[in-house]
Amino acid sequence: MSDIPAAVRHARRGVRLAEIDPRSTPGFTGDKAAGEALLAERAEHLAELQERLHASASAGDGRSVLLLLQGMDTAGKGGLVRHVVGAVDPQGVRITSFKRPTPAERRHDFLWRIERALPQPGQIGVFDRSHYEDVLIHRVRGLSKPEVIEQRYGRIVDFERQLADQGVHLVKVMPHISYGEQGARLLERLDRPDKHWKYNPGDVDERTMWAEYQQAYTIAIDRTARVAAPWHVVPADRKWFARLAVQELLIEALEAIDPQWPVADYDVDAERERLVALGGIPEEALAASPALAAPVVAKGAKRAKAKDAKSKSKAAPKSKSTAKSTSKTESKAKAAPKSKAKPKGKGKR
Amino acid sequence: MSDIPAAVRHARRGVRLAEIDPRSTPGFTGDKAAGEALLAERAEHLAELQERLHASASAGDGRSVLLLLQGMDTAGKGGLVRHVVGAVDPQGVRITSFKRPTPAERRHDFLWRIERALPQPGQIGVFDRSHYEDVLIHRVRGLSKPEVIEQRYGRIVDFERQLADQGVHLVKVMPHISYGEQGARLLERLDRPDKHWKYNPGDVDERTMWAEYQQAYTIAIDRTARVAAPWHVVPADRKWFARLAVQELLIEALEAIDPQWPVADYDVDAERERLVALGGIPEEALAASPALAAPVVAKGAKRAKAKDAKSKSKAAPKSKSTAKSTSKTESKAKAAPKSKAKPKGKGKR
Repeated sequence: MSDIPAAVRHARRGVRLAEIDPRSTPGFTGDKAAGEALLAERAEHLAELQERLHASASAGDGRSVLLLLQGMDTAGKGGLVRHVVGAVDPQGVRITSFKRPTPAERRHDFLWRIERALPQPGQIGVFDRSHYEDVLIHRVRGLSKPEVIEQRYGRIVDFERQLADQGVHLVKVMPHISYGEQGARLLERLDRPDKHWKYNPGDVDERTMWAEYQQAYTIAIDRTARVAAPWHVVPADRKWFARLAVQELLIEALEAIDPQWPVADYDVDAERERLVALGGIPEEALAASPALAAPVVAKGAKRAKAKDAKSKSKAAPKSKSTAKSTSKTESKAKAAPKSKAKPKGKGKR
Repeated sequence: MSDIPAAVRHARRGVRLAEIDPRSTPGFTGDKAAGEALLAERAEHLAELQERLHASASAGDGRSVLLLLQGMDTAGKGGLVRHVVGAVDPQGVRITSFKRPTPAERRHDFLWRIERALPQPGQIGVFDRSHYEDVLIHRVRGLSKPEVIEQRYGRIVDFERQLADQGVHLVKVMPHISYGEQGARLLERLDRPDKHWKYNPGDVDERTMWAEYQQAYTIAIDRTARVAAPWHVVPADRKWFARLAVQELLIEALEAIDPQWPVADYDVDAERERLVALGGIPEEALAASPALAAPVVAKGAKRAKAKDAKSKSKAAPKSKSTAKSTSKTESKAKAAPKSKAKPKGKGKR
């Protein structure tokens, strides 16, 4: 497979951003085509892990995953969400985009809005920007006093430790682009009318502070990289690599949680009996049920039949026509779990 | 293409649920393979329309889409969200699953929690169940007095009219399954350990009231079908058809809105000049810019060069190595909008 997670991880002080090439592909030796093929292949695995996580919460497992994306403008955060997170069931995902704080948010502690956006048990939370804004733009633009920013590094470390204690598996990612690549991407936004809305004149103002931002990122990462809350600096000049890396990081986090399908808290055989007793299940579906085919359950089915007679008046649908309408082909397909990947058209934007 | 939307729409009184075959495919003459191929093909169009909707909100367009899914247990609501809504950028989607109301919710009017979950401008909202619970299960189970339920139909009609006035394009869908198909699907949930968590003994209790539910749905649809807020009864015994139908309904809604890429509210040429003046954009990216190739902008670029000298000390990145790292192949690909669909692996669950 690949060993991208270990290759991009920083769990201790001593990160030197300037020495990480934004065009490199650490932990992966394949080219773009190989990377894209692997991304498509692994999407299925990620989606199944996510469904397990979602399911496990219904049985009381309180754990969740939080993908935190913090990078420069045009680093590709939106594309990571669309192409990596977009491959899992949207019902299990909670995405929060942290814009410039509202006046109400500014009246609170900087972690207030963050805490309110944490994933629920079983969810994959995504932060598009985060509490790191308060030590990045605040440092570069002098929006807070140095001693306040200094204090915040410690607050962040404490906060992230608490997350781990609460069962939130945090995955901190900095998509790392080069100055040249940012320029090319901003130029593209200006050259394409369908991308004009993504451009803001303030983007160029921020770009003039590139070196200061790189320094602020270096310090922030350095001060908050911990074994329990490591940073992942993901080279992102090649979009395909950044996507593959974030996908692998999410898979790694989910595999560490190793969520299990919940065990039924009801009597499966008794429920099957009750269900069959109600009647109306097409013959093909009954025949396809492995449990009903087994001798012990056949006995159960007999008992169920007896019950059926009793409850019939209440249970039978008034319109019988719909009760028989499941065809052979449809019910046959139900017998075994399916896990085949399906190609799925999705606009590339 | 297909004319599914018109074929499943009910905009006036007189709906007779019992006469709609849950295995039919109204408005579509193709088979399953053709339906699945069309679903994959149209996903790209849906995704682009959604991105336009999202973009238009940034320019002040207040409109949104709300897909309301209200159907019997196992009707496939979750699958519709995963397979149809899952094809668009999750950043533009807001999904709300309405469970049994909490004590806090019960203290409020039945529309209170609904109003709090409406989509924001530019979003596609999805309701998994809805305010119709309060005239469906409430009617079947006698949770509210008949006169209260009677009143609610009118309240719902008024509420949905207000939504239209507010720019919320409501798409009401009842995925319509047969009694037999529900039985087969419940049986499958009991037969597959990875689906046990989706089964609840209460599901069979509800199934005993099938006829009463069908009647309650018929009345609810009948009483609330309006030209401005029509119902769509989507035959759902064939999952592929239901997905295709809901996709077409979303496309129809978005095409009616016809969201446009916002026009830049800044001077594009001036911004390009300012950006180029900052320096650091790889030669290949500059060469690929159609605007920079044109003579008038070449002049602008010259002016930009002069500015560059002035602002250099501030603008230039400290680490020059990253500034040159955009390769030819990468920047070439940027010249034209891409809209190619990409196969994307996604677990079938």
